[in-house]
Amino acid sequence: MSAEIICVGTELLLGDILNSNSQFLGQQLAQLGIPHYYQTVVGDNPERLKQVIEIAISRAQILIFTGGLGPTPDDLTCETIADFFGVPLIERPEIIADITQKFAQRGRVMTPTNRKQALTPQGADILPNPTGTAPGIIWQPRPEITILTFPGVPSEMHRMWSETAVPFLKNQGWGKEIIYSRSLKFWGIGESALAEKVAPYFNLLNPTVAPYAGKGEVRLRISAKAASQSAAQDLISPIEKQLIDIAGLDYYGADDDTLGAVVGKLLRLSGETLSVAESCTGGGLGQMLTDISGSSDYFWGGIISYDNSVKLNLLGVNPNDLDKFGAVSSTVAEQMAIKVKISLSTSWGLSITGIAGPTGGTDTKPVGLVYIGLAGPNNEVKSFEYRFGAIGGRSLIREVSANTALDLLRRKLIIHA
Amino acid sequence: MSAEIICVGTELLLGDILNSNSQFLGQQLAQLGIPHYYQTVVGDNPERLKQVIEIAISRAQILIFTGGLGPTPDDLTCETIADFFGVPLIERPEIIADITQKFAQRGRVMTPTNRKQALTPQGADILPNPTGTAPGIIWQPRPEITILTFPGVPSEMHRMWSETAVPFLKNQGWGKEIIYSRSLKFWGIGESALAEKVAPYFNLLNPTVAPYAGKGEVRLRISAKAASQSAAQDLISPIEKQLIDIAGLDYYGADDDTLGAVVGKLLRLSGETLSVAESCTGGGLGQMLTDISGSSDYFWGGIISYDNSVKLNLLGVNPNDLDKFGAVSSTVAEQMAIKVKISLSTSWGLSITGIAGPTGGTDTKPVGLVYIGLAGPNNEVKSFEYRFGAIGGRSLIREVSANTALDLLRRKLIIHA
Repeated sequence: MSAEIICVGTELLLGDILNSNSQFLGQQLAQLGIPHYYQTVVGDNPERLKQVIEIAISRAQILIFTGGLGPTPDDLTCETIADFFGVPLIERPEIIADITQKFAQRGRVMTPTNRKQALTPQGADILPNPTGTAPGIIWQPRPEITILTFPGVPSEMHRMWSETAVPFLKNQGWGKEIIYSRSLKFWGIGESALAEKVAPYFNLLNPTVAPYAGKGEVRLRISAKAASQSAAQDLISPIEKQLIDIAGLDYYGADDDTLGAVVGKLLRLSGETLSVAESCTGGGLGQMLTDISGSSDYFWGGIISYDNSVKLNLLGVNPNDLDKFGAVSSTVAEQMAIKVKISLSTSWGLSITGIAGPTGGTDTKPVGLVYIGLAGPNNEVKSFEYRFGAIGGRSLIREVSANTALDLLRRKLIIHA
Repeated sequence: MSAEIICVGTELLLGDILNSNSQFLGQQLAQLGIPHYYQTVVGDNPERLKQVIEIAISRAQILIFTGGLGPTPDDLTCETIADFFGVPLIERPEIIADITQKFAQRGRVMTPTNRKQALTPQGADILPNPTGTAPGIIWQPRPEITILTFPGVPSEMHRMWSETAVPFLKNQGWGKEIIYSRSLKFWGIGESALAEKVAPYFNLLNPTVAPYAGKGEVRLRISAKAASQSAAQDLISPIEKQLIDIAGLDYYGADDDTLGAVVGKLLRLSGETLSVAESCTGGGLGQMLTDISGSSDYFWGGIISYDNSVKLNLLGVNPNDLDKFGAVSSTVAEQMAIKVKISLSTSWGLSITGIAGPTGGTDTKPVGLVYIGLAGPNNEVKSFEYRFGAIGGRSLIREVSANTALDLLRRKLIIHA
């Protein structure tokens, strides 16, 4: 028993809309333990949609459609499915009544075009749409095939899914093994270096372990198949512990954890406070820290010293050093960190100065060169040099710089504790 | 001649990742005038991927793959395609050299697992990846079939697409009727209010005009079908001018324009400078301004006064006013704006103080209440109150607040000029 997701809409092919419905349905099917192996997007075209149905029924038993249930002439999903299985459409008075009432609630009269939405294949059950005018159907046109249709509007689809489709699917007893996953997150180690350290784990069958990389971060996803979520967690937990042990300090958190959140937790534990001095990140480091509600308990603020005048006048960087070493230097990074720490009276001061590009690089100071300064509770200050290279572009250099700064502080806070 | 998009990755089926690649490729194919009628997502499974290829070559001539080019064992796209067409994989020394060099730039040594990425089907051309280690291929395994492969990482894929795939596809002369679109962007007006102003335009057939809304912004997309991009632009231009005229100051830019970039252009024109004082946005306003390379010409920096101590000590907000009116008040917003402007010696000072939530709201000062202060060249200062509501959540309130501040300054700069 497996499902297939079929999203109908020319707007999806043209890229006018991001297909978030297939992501939602994929997550939901995994949680229900119903496998699905294919997703298809097809335009508002009856012949092509029929071809897609033909292929889908050859390899899946549950067909989940989104889109094409609207009132306009290009909305063809329901009639095309009925036509494919050779079943007539029937006007359903209860849908007419529901649409009429919804229009009345908004002080409007149902338009004739909406009548179309009351047509469902003979023998199909209505899948009610509490928030919109387009209902879906649950239908078994053949004993071995089950069809569910949903409108393309995500908010309507989500509610119809959780209120009607989930209880229906659970009742069928099709969900055998659910899939549950944990993402472990690592900073300061490359994908291939981490992969080599944990290589034997990639051969596991349940749970499986797979690496993902992006924006300076590496993740290991541990996915388990089991009869229930807690049984899956029992399979995942020992592997998770082992992977975290192997990775050591390079592991920073799981799932929705961010470096900003992890640093925040550590500062909260130690009762310490933080301020930042930002040049090339221009506020991005502060933004990451303040993504967390309640961060004012440990993050007091900072100085965006984008122009050198701000480094000199507000931060108090030594003008001779700025002249001699340049704004992008370990000396200036260290002074930024210590000066902001003192100026804002915090336990820690964290600074970033670098060349985010695409212009401004030289042979000795190329785009991607970044210095991070860290001043600690005893006023000791250190700086760290990074060469992120130009290839990722300005936005990536800035994001990786801010996360690298947070990661440096994270390691210090862990070693300190 | 038509294309088919095939996205490979179990993480897509499980919903771990939103499939933005198919949206990007759909838009790009429309711009090239190459029709595509189907998109398929399939997991990291060679047998199923082969079935997908079998179906795709029966209905399309250009197969575009994303994903599954990484160094780990579950990355199988390239070998599966080669296997399907019965062609051996060949190790390409130029790819080994490229990967080795990329590792060296980051001070690392290429790992043995990366060697796998140097294997391409015999006879395939390399589609270079300037930013990552996984190159793609351009390959005609049969005279009537062309295959292009890309890694799943969007930033790498985008660059490979625009630098190599687009010139290649254009050269083939496959593009017939292209679809070209312009997105006009508006701030400070709701979707329905704008829709009512421009309602007759929604009935146009070529170009079409359609509204989209999200994150406080409204867009009108104008799409034209024509033989060439310039012919499409000729259809779009008069409609674009009319829509901009109707919208007046609510229109701020098109396509990739951001409010940060537009404000930057206006400041550059007037030769003026800007500093910011941020509380609830925590650096997000500075980050938006410094997203633009060269922004140091007009954006000098700012103070992140997240904690009240920073508002008092570094900015110099009056302690009695802070006590009497609270940190989230028009008085404090105005003082933040004027103090940062004076402290950093800029023409303009822009401040934000508000309650981003989800906690911290009260009956009189609910979550979503935000004050923006703007101090101008003659030291006149004004504040503006906004109630964004709690429903969008912390991240949306912060983003909308920063964009609203930029929009306020944009309007002032236009009226000033």
